[in-house]
Amino acid sequence: MAKKESQGLTVKKDEDISEWYTQVIQKADMADYTMVSGCIVFKPNSYEIWERIKDETDKRLKLMGIKNSYFPLLIPESLLTKEKEHVEGFSPEVAWVTEGGGKKLNEKLAIRPTSETIMYDSYSKWIRSWRDLPLKLCQWNNVVRWEFKHAVPFLRTREFLWVEGHTVFAAKEEAEKEMKDIMELWQLICNDYLALPSLAGQKTEKEKFAGAEYTQTLEFYLPSGKAAQGPDAHFDGQKFAKAFDIKFLDKNEKEQYVYQNTWAITTRMLGVMIMVHGDDRGLIIPPKIAPTQVVIVPILTKDDKENVLKKASEIKEGLEKKFRIYLDDRENYSPGWKFNEWELKGIPIRLEIGPKDIKKDQVVLVRRDLNTKKEIKISHLKDEVEALLETIQKSLFMKAKKLLNDNIAEVKNWKEFEDAVKNKKIVKANFCNVTECEDEIKSKLEGAKALNIPFNQEGLEKNCAHCGKKAKVIAYFAKSY
Amino acid sequence: MAKKESQGLTVKKDEDISEWYTQVIQKADMADYTMVSGCIVFKPNSYEIWERIKDETDKRLKLMGIKNSYFPLLIPESLLTKEKEHVEGFSPEVAWVTEGGGKKLNEKLAIRPTSETIMYDSYSKWIRSWRDLPLKLCQWNNVVRWEFKHAVPFLRTREFLWVEGHTVFAAKEEAEKEMKDIMELWQLICNDYLALPSLAGQKTEKEKFAGAEYTQTLEFYLPSGKAAQGPDAHFDGQKFAKAFDIKFLDKNEKEQYVYQNTWAITTRMLGVMIMVHGDDRGLIIPPKIAPTQVVIVPILTKDDKENVLKKASEIKEGLEKKFRIYLDDRENYSPGWKFNEWELKGIPIRLEIGPKDIKKDQVVLVRRDLNTKKEIKISHLKDEVEALLETIQKSLFMKAKKLLNDNIAEVKNWKEFEDAVKNKKIVKANFCNVTECEDEIKSKLEGAKALNIPFNQEGLEKNCAHCGKKAKVIAYFAKSY
Repeated sequence: MAKKESQGLTVKKDEDISEWYTQVIQKADMADYTMVSGCIVFKPNSYEIWERIKDETDKRLKLMGIKNSYFPLLIPESLLTKEKEHVEGFSPEVAWVTEGGGKKLNEKLAIRPTSETIMYDSYSKWIRSWRDLPLKLCQWNNVVRWEFKHAVPFLRTREFLWVEGHTVFAAKEEAEKEMKDIMELWQLICNDYLALPSLAGQKTEKEKFAGAEYTQTLEFYLPSGKAAQGPDAHFDGQKFAKAFDIKFLDKNEKEQYVYQNTWAITTRMLGVMIMVHGDDRGLIIPPKIAPTQVVIVPILTKDDKENVLKKASEIKEGLEKKFRIYLDDRENYSPGWKFNEWELKGIPIRLEIGPKDIKKDQVVLVRRDLNTKKEIKISHLKDEVEALLETIQKSLFMKAKKLLNDNIAEVKNWKEFEDAVKNKKIVKANFCNVTECEDEIKSKLEGAKALNIPFNQEGLEKNCAHCGKKAKVIAYFAKSY
Repeated sequence: MAKKESQGLTVKKDEDISEWYTQVIQKADMADYTMVSGCIVFKPNSYEIWERIKDETDKRLKLMGIKNSYFPLLIPESLLTKEKEHVEGFSPEVAWVTEGGGKKLNEKLAIRPTSETIMYDSYSKWIRSWRDLPLKLCQWNNVVRWEFKHAVPFLRTREFLWVEGHTVFAAKEEAEKEMKDIMELWQLICNDYLALPSLAGQKTEKEKFAGAEYTQTLEFYLPSGKAAQGPDAHFDGQKFAKAFDIKFLDKNEKEQYVYQNTWAITTRMLGVMIMVHGDDRGLIIPPKIAPTQVVIVPILTKDDKENVLKKASEIKEGLEKKFRIYLDDRENYSPGWKFNEWELKGIPIRLEIGPKDIKKDQVVLVRRDLNTKKEIKISHLKDEVEALLETIQKSLFMKAKKLLNDNIAEVKNWKEFEDAVKNKKIVKANFCNVTECEDEIKSKLEGAKALNIPFNQEGLEKNCAHCGKKAKVIAYFAKSY
């Protein structure tokens, strides 16, 4: 028998969430640290979740007419610096290639922190006429941002994976229509697959993407008391078009600059998912994106081993067309050890079957999220599993929704604002939306910053909760990854 | 009407294949050059083919129990240099990151030319016991090899995409069994999807992978008169295990080094596909991997436009569940222009429908590969399209097989050997399999080298075709990309 020591987590989530997170990603085989500071291994357990997020996203992007492509990893310095705001935003974080094939390069090459500049150089060659528009490309790739902030696996790493969309339109309205569609897609993926509710809104001028006219985001609340920005969409207007000379002849043979959008969803969402849903026993993975949805643990005794394994196999075969299912028939581990392992790894449903169950023509279903057990007749199993997976998916979302709502503090004045940030809440405040005021808030609150200005502006009152001047918007503020 | 000039290819394939290739990849929207020397854009038309190759490969790898993962792009110099032969093979081609986030790095980081070193550093931490084996991981990613040879889009670029598999076994036999399975998978993907026959065999000692005990490959003949190595598999034995200290306790609690394999298929195969199948009118894409399998071109006249478009839409709807189909209903291009465009892009079947066809309840099917036409009753269309796609797929393979066979020259002596290389053939020769002899052959023939030693060794004769000493094997030789 393998030993049980060190199998489970040795810390509770609400006692030391940072240590809990470190243990859970390693013990549940999600990621590992590497010799490269700030870069992790995405192990199969996490990569397979990313593949599911990718597949669900990719098929919907394809239905929107957006096509996959692949542009070079390396970007010449002269290209990266073409759009002024963009380069100011990204150049402090660039990793530079200066040597290749044993020689010093004539021009430094940036590892893409994002691909606007290399893509738009091509776009400016490809786009000539209104017939060439819209041009809607994306790429699923890796990017590197050489930050010096403390790395947190998935949530902030120097290399991460994402899809970056770069779309070009003849008309502003078309571009802004797509912004809306993309933000809806991000909400669908986060709500329905990751079971992660969010705050949707627009970034302030200060926090918008380097080079965009405006940026929209989904913001998430993590039980560590910090917020995390999730997927985003940037309406670039004609800023990059002018920097990269992307023009077209319209139907009246008049030359026009194009309108552009940029948007992305990244592997950061795996970190949000782990932190929001996990508990003291380990990961909890939403059923729709779980690599394994049901694990069968047969209770093997000396006398009945073969009979139980046979029945367990039959059950597996009966379910595997419909569900992602794994039969843990290892004989050198005890059932208890297996229970702990699959709980740690967050498999939504455990199905136990032993000699007594077989006699009663039943199995025991255990919900990972609530740890509740239910005896089920084998004849009802398929329907019960299907219903239970749906229930768990919804229940995780509702629980996360409550976590989010419970941690939003509506504040009326600066005292409440400061207290709420101290108490690790997301602050919902009336705000003048002036950058100087925003700067002051950030410096007074040790980095707590404006997350976004929610699309829903109901309840806007007269005065900015910080400066007392006229409030223009309701905005969310918090410390953030 | 858009103008027709410069739409088609201006050179014939057999007159100047290098110019033909350059034109076809650009005019058929497969790739474009970039500001980064040796790196290309994979445009949607080529990327979608790669996605199909990826999907077909990935699902079979998963059935073999191989899991996807993702390891860092950047590899510290000290790791890259751990296995002596490996570093000698790769370090001349490495692109180095020396600056990050505005600072000079303490240790240079290589952009992965391949991931053995970064992966095996993790493997040595993860593998402890026989219970941890086999460990079978792969990753679909990008790699950079900073070669100075003339770049050829897809066939030789400084950055390319691939899957790299890195598998670990307790027993040599298990590893070698997987070698066989992988080589069979590569043949299946190349034969059945890319319609590309190949020469399967083992590399000579001189040409094997840096760090492997032996390397097996598929080699392809291109109508440019050069060969190209395709997918490969390397049996590494315990070489990396010893360099990276990857050991496990076996069932008898004895410490053992593991056995490892490495294997890959790359985007190079897109280049082989383009060059083998294409003709003077452009690309020819095998139906199974074609992004669009059938294009409908309605013949629109003033009087019947609506009626024809309606019928064309009905036909599309009837076929689109089963086939990848596109209705080209653009009104600002003539049918002739469209015919040329879709021929250039290599769509396997063109379906023409005009007023006269509608009266006869028929359509015209045109095969891209042979340019033959056939009138088909609409009621038989689904079956006919299905059969025709299969026929085209097989026919492309048979044609490529003939090309390969016609260009293998069996030689008996050095005179025939030299002549065959001059005539741009693949030489099949009896060979002593001594590295010094191989070196001499390569230097005498301006770089023509041993491709591989075919698995099928029927017909081995007494004397090496070069040195006249005892022949040990039959081997293939040619100039190669």
